[in-house]
Amino acid sequence: MTAWSVLEITGVAAFAVSGALTGIQKKLDIFGVLVLAVTTAIGGGVLRDVIIGNTPPLTFRDPTFFVISAVSTIGVCFTYRWIHKFQYTIQIFDAIGLGSFTATSANLAIQHDLNTLFIVTTVAVITGIGGGVIRDVFVKEIPYVFRQEVYAITTIAGAVSFYYSQFYLPGNTPLYLCFGITTGMRLFCI
Amino acid sequence: MTAWSVLEITGVAAFAVSGALTGIQKKLDIFGVLVLAVTTAIGGGVLRDVIIGNTPPLTFRDPTFFVISAVSTIGVCFTYRWIHKFQYTIQIFDAIGLGSFTATSANLAIQHDLNTLFIVTTVAVITGIGGGVIRDVFVKEIPYVFRQEVYAITTIAGAVSFYYSQFYLPGNTPLYLCFGITTGMRLFCI
Amino acid sequence: MTAWSVLEITGVAAFAVSGALTGIQKKLDIFGVLVLAVTTAIGGGVLRDVIIGNTPPLTFRDPTFFVISAVSTIGVCFTYRWIHKFQYTIQIFDAIGLGSFTATSANLAIQHDLNTLFIVTTVAVITGIGGGVIRDVFVKEIPYVFRQEVYAITTIAGAVSFYYSQFYLPGNTPLYLCFGITTGMRLFCI
Repeated sequence: MTAWSVLEITGVAAFAVSGALTGIQKKLDIFGVLVLAVTTAIGGGVLRDVIIGNTPPLTFRDPTFFVISAVSTIGVCFTYRWIHKFQYTIQIFDAIGLGSFTATSANLAIQHDLNTLFIVTTVAVITGIGGGVIRDVFVKEIPYVFRQEVYAITTIAGAVSFYYSQFYLPGNTPLYLCFGITTGMRLFCI
Repeated sequence: MTAWSVLEITGVAAFAVSGALTGIQKKLDIFGVLVLAVTTAIGGGVLRDVIIGNTPPLTFRDPTFFVISAVSTIGVCFTYRWIHKFQYTIQIFDAIGLGSFTATSANLAIQHDLNTLFIVTTVAVITGIGGGVIRDVFVKEIPYVFRQEVYAITTIAGAVSFYYSQFYLPGNTPLYLCFGITTGMRLFCI
Repeated sequence: MTAWSVLEITGVAAFAVSGALTGIQKKLDIFGVLVLAVTTAIGGGVLRDVIIGNTPPLTFRDPTFFVISAVSTIGVCFTYRWIHKFQYTIQIFDAIGLGSFTATSANLAIQHDLNTLFIVTTVAVITGIGGGVIRDVFVKEIPYVFRQEVYAITTIAGAVSFYYSQFYLPGNTPLYLCFGITTGMRLFCI
């Protein structure tokens, strides 16, 4: 398992945790909490894959992300009394998720020959915010990203850095740069 | 018309009825009731086709399901005073719809070479619950499936039975087995 | 720039204005207003492209519509006190948008060999109403089109006129006919 897989898994888990916590706050039953957590964690990636024509979506071909989301949700259910006090910790995880989703998606767009700055950024933003938007629509909230401008701006900054750095930096370096900028900016703004 | 077509049509009609009844309860006008009924009846199938890359969706290539939904809606509008007392009857139809949607979608996934247990089940669940989720989002309810765990579990059981039985059972038998398990479990839990 | 481009740009701008005004009324911050405006303006087209398998969606390949939406939103933010009194003016723009979206989409469907009356009409309706439905779901309203029957009916009439006239009328004439019927009927009904 590479360092990158660790970041990606942390990201999926963090998004699942945010979905599960929202579900518990909205008094859904255990199954509803699970569905909401999974939707939040994989929703952005599914939207992305449908939009770039990468069907069926990656998450549906390989159950890894699904299993991670389910395990995270079960974890949340057992530790809710303890974990929900740590909004700050959750936001750190969420920032890691945002960074890894942005970098992975920008990279995937390039691999699919979608290599203009505009489309790389758009694809990255949709993936980064998509899961959260779906979560909020399901529980009847105006999506968080509409009320928290800085959220999407960090994704845009990360995607732009990825796009330009890929011409000059070797191997996986642009991925880590994009992750660092997105997550770093997000953490700075919490 | 085969026995299978009859089950499929019953399913679409049942989902349309549930959408139309919801629309009337939410005091939409006749056109809104129609749109909600059609969306509920075909939404799951459209989501499925977009996700597996089967575009344009089957329902848009052939107006049959659309016509069935429209006719069902008109039927509901004329019999509302009478029909809305029969929640139990509607749930029976809904169970038939869930069973036929699950079986058809599991089968379609296999035909599209998506033949792992995970993706067959995922595709079946999305089709089975998709229409109802869209309906509930449109009328500002937290989706029913988030509050009624047993709904999705019957779909999962049906899809799993389809997946394993297709290796051993001939012809359409896995379709009927999947339908029987999904609908049977759902009826049992009402 | 052809006369048709002018109509199309007017349409996108009008839809963006309706999204921006909705966002301001719902007290979103400036970024939320921008996202809602862009979503309203491009949402229908993105849905259409995903559904007909035209991925990635046209709007993501070329930033023109995005830029128009952003500029319109900024315009709305500076002129809100003045513009929100002119609901009537906005509805005129909205009717122009509906007409141009309907005609463009019906045309695009034909170009993608989707040439039955049913699918041309369906694609046109989804594009015409899609953006507004997404806008209303995001701000927790039951979609406007569910409460305003005439909206979708004008799209249907336009798409039907396009479908039949393309066999007899040369060049871009069916586009303008479709636009005239959709926009004309809508203006008549305001």
